[in-house]
Order: sequence, then C-alpha cells, then structure tokens
Amino acid sequence: MSHHRAVSTGFAAHAAYAEYAAFAEAMADAVRPLSLGWFRRRLDIEAKADESPVTIADREVETALRARIMQTYPAHGIWGEEFGKTRPDAEFVWSVDPIDGTRSFITGHPLWGTLLALLRNGRPVLGVIDIPATGERWVGMQGDGGGARFNGAPCATSPVAALADATVYATSPDIFSETEFAAFGRVSAATRHRRYGGDCYAYGLLASGHVELVMEAGLQTYDYLALAPVIEAAGGIITDWDGQPLTLASQGRVLAAANPALHRQALALIGRVTV
Amino acid sequence: MSHHRAVSTGFAAHAAYAEYAAFAEAMADAVRPLSLGWFRRRLDIEAKADESPVTIADREVETALRARIMQTYPAHGIWGEEFGKTRPDAEFVWSVDPIDGTRSFITGHPLWGTLLALLRNGRPVLGVIDIPATGERWVGMQGDGGGARFNGAPCATSPVAALADATVYATSPDIFSETEFAAFGRVSAATRHRRYGGDCYAYGLLASGHVELVMEAGLQTYDYLALAPVIEAAGGIITDWDGQPLTLASQGRVLAAANPALHRQALALIGRVTV
Repeated sequence: MSHHRAVSTGFAAHAAYAEYAAFAEAMADAVRPLSLGWFRRRLDIEAKADESPVTIADREVETALRARIMQTYPAHGIWGEEFGKTRPDAEFVWSVDPIDGTRSFITGHPLWGTLLALLRNGRPVLGVIDIPATGERWVGMQGDGGGARFNGAPCATSPVAALADATVYATSPDIFSETEFAAFGRVSAATRHRRYGGDCYAYGLLASGHVELVMEAGLQTYDYLALAPVIEAAGGIITDWDGQPLTLASQGRVLAAANPALHRQALALIGRVTV
Repeated sequence: MSHHRAVSTGFAAHAAYAEYAAFAEAMADAVRPLSLGWFRRRLDIEAKADESPVTIADREVETALRARIMQTYPAHGIWGEEFGKTRPDAEFVWSVDPIDGTRSFITGHPLWGTLLALLRNGRPVLGVIDIPATGERWVGMQGDGGGARFNGAPCATSPVAALADATVYATSPDIFSETEFAAFGRVSAATRHRRYGGDCYAYGLLASGHVELVMEAGLQTYDYLALAPVIEAAGGIITDWDGQPLTLASQGRVLAAANPALHRQALALIGRVTV
C-alpha cells in the first residue's frame, strides 16, 4: 500500500463547494480569450526538459489564473504547470494546467483544454475541464449541490456494462511504453471500438456518457487532479492501473471507466504491468 | 501507368465554379441541423459489410442532399456513400459523404464532417469539408475566383519545407496494414510531431497551414474526391503513395503535403509498399 495521501474524490465531502465552482468557472471564462488569442497563430515554441512543447499562451493563462486566485483567496495555495508551487500546504490548493493538449494547440486542433482543480487537504474536491475553442466545459464537484455538469446541465456516465459494447480512448499509442501498449491492446481488443486523440477531452466524453473507458499513461498530476472530480461526480471511477486511488505520487497511468463493472473487466485484462 | 482517369485537380480549369460553390455551401448549411440533431444521441447502429458503423444521420443527410441536387440540377449525377450512383456518366457529378468520421460521430467526438465534391468529366473541380459541430468549413475550387477558403476567408498551406519541422497526421494507426504502418513510421519518425485523430478534419488543418502532412490508407473515393480540391486550391499536393494522381481506382492510400518539397521527402521515405 502506498503511504501517499489518496487524491480520489470517492469520499463523502463535508461541505458544498458551489462558491469555488462559480469562481473557477469565472476564471475559465476570463482566460478563454487569452488562450484563444494565441490559437492558430505562429508561436515561439520552446522545448521543456521533457520535450513537450510549451507556448506563450501557457504562461499568459497561468499568470492570469494565479493573479485571480491570489486576489480572491490569498490564503489558498497554487500548483501550476508553468510556475510551480505556492503555499502547497494550505488547506485549499488550486491545481492549474493552462493548456492541456499542447500538441493539439500548436497544430491548430481545437480539442485542447484548460484544467483547474481545487484540492482540500490534498484531495481534489472540484474539477473543471474547459475547452475554449469549442466553448465546452465540464465541471464536477463533491458535496451538496455536487454532481457533474456539461455546459451547465447535469451529465452522467454511460450505463454500458460489457466491455464488448464499450469504446475506449487514448490520446495516442505513442504515450505508452511497449508493455503499457500491450496492456492497452488487451483491453482495447475486448472493446467495440478503440480511438485515439483527445487529451482531456476524452475524459469529458466519458463524463457525458459518450465513451466508456479512457486508458492512458504518462499523465501529469495537473491532469488527473482536475479529471478525477469530473469523472467521479458523473458516476464514473478513475484509478491507476492497479486499481488504486490516484495519488500525488501515481506513475501517471490512469484508467477511467463509466462504472465499476467496466473498471473491473479492464483491470483484469491489464494485469500487472511493471515497466 | 494507370489507364484510369486521373481525378487530380492539378489541371487548369476552364470555367469558374462560383455558382456551384455557393450551391454546395447552401446545401451544407441546410443539412447541418439534420446531422447535429442526431449527434450525441443514442443511435441504432447497424453494421455495414465493411464493419464501419452507419447512422440514421448518414441516411437523412444524404437523402436531403440528393433531393436538393436533383431539384436544382436535374441533369447532374450523384454518387453517395449510402445510396450509390445516379447518372454517373453525367458531365457534372456530385460526390457525397454525409458523415465522414462515423466513429467520431457515434462517440460524441465533434470532428466529423460532411464531404461534398463536384466532378466535371470525372475530375473534382470543387470540394467542401464541412464540420457541423464546430461550425467550420473549408471550400476549394478551380477556376476564376478559385482558391481555398476557411469560413469564408482565404487559406493556404504551410511554407515549412523540411520534414524535420513538419507535423504529420493520420486518423489512427489502426487504418494501416503492417507494411503500411511501417511506411508511416518511416515518414513520421522524420517529422517533428506525429498525431492521430482527425478524419477529414486533418486535411482542413493542412489546408489552413497548421499541419504539413496527412498520410492515410483505406480512404474511400467519397473522401478524397472532396479533399483533393481543397488541398490543391490551398497550395498543397495530394496523391497516392506512389506519387500518382488519385484516381477513381486508387487503393485508398493518400499522401497530402503542404508543398512539393515535403511531398518529395515523404515519398522517398515511403518507397514501394506492396500489401
């Protein structure tokens, strides 16, 4: 068992987070013009240590998000993909991924997103998947008035319970190691369809009941902290490939399923994947 | 050399096709509500002989397109994906793929399209790539007032001339045979990025200069007849994997490039692919 704190949202919440959800949505509204202003323009692309491209838009959006958080909730902490951690031990910490799907962004593909999560004592209680280019947004939160919403309306995961009737998404086969891809192959071979592409968008499709599984590797903490509350509030389940709650130290292997039955079937096919 | 008639639009046109382009755009406008009305709804999915899913939306859209064509241009022929060929030997023939990207459509993914092409004496002189869910449209045509347009504004392919700086798209690795995937691997390994997903949308991104190459196999005539005029009117080049113009008997292997320099480099890496 890991001694790291679980970040699953599968626990009962003790408060409503409606105020924070409204604030998060207002932030997402405010930064849409910033990211869209750089979308489909020539960008200076710099390489980060891990070789993923990063854009001016990334920095502008995160800067704007940080300023709003610090102004409205000065006691809250912030973890941002670009500028690191501020007050990481605060009771409430905002996790920010300004542009998830950078490669989509720089190739003019509209399905990139801005990811926001609010953590309370290390557990995400609120997540936002915002897709500026299509004007779509998924929000999920714990507590009274919780649940998942797509563009303001309640959404829920698919009732499909047999893997043979399910669709599975992954962003690309290139995110997997050889053994990871073999595991993805075992799961996807048992499904009706497998599809590539999506980044955070695929998790939104799952929260809205359009697809049943997303299986990925190499995800960043900033990604799954925002995805987990949306998936779980919509009725789904999201864990690592061992079926364990995602923690701050998870290896980036994520299995999201529309319901526990599909999750069990997929886990059984994944088995134990070491490298 | 093939004896089949070339369908490349790389020849000088003898007339302006603005009237037909306006008609095609009006058709695309008219059928958007039909396809969108079925998008993200539960559908009865039937399996065709080739196992690709087909939807009610497919049939409704094609029925509406056929009615409009027959009413406005009764002498014109029609080739449709769902209902086959009517007057295929007419001077002007409309090629119709009501829903390209059916798997995107049935999984709630917005980047499917309606593809329209006008052939004159067997050669496509006008192409429309319409993306109802995002409200985007690419149009390309030959002749006076020709060129390519994205949402009404002129668009052009990328000036990037080195493969090492290029991005290549394919809808999925699953569209390729083993030897085809090896060829895609040789090309994509020489590029800056490879990305999966897209169907017809990837060709629109190429026409707008956001990506430099699309390399696919298994395309249908209905697909590339509409794509070719858009790519070529935007300054790109589109052929089969032997560098030959796409014909009505092409094997569905398509290489689209932003410019001749990239096209040459990609062809050299593809080499001769038999099976």
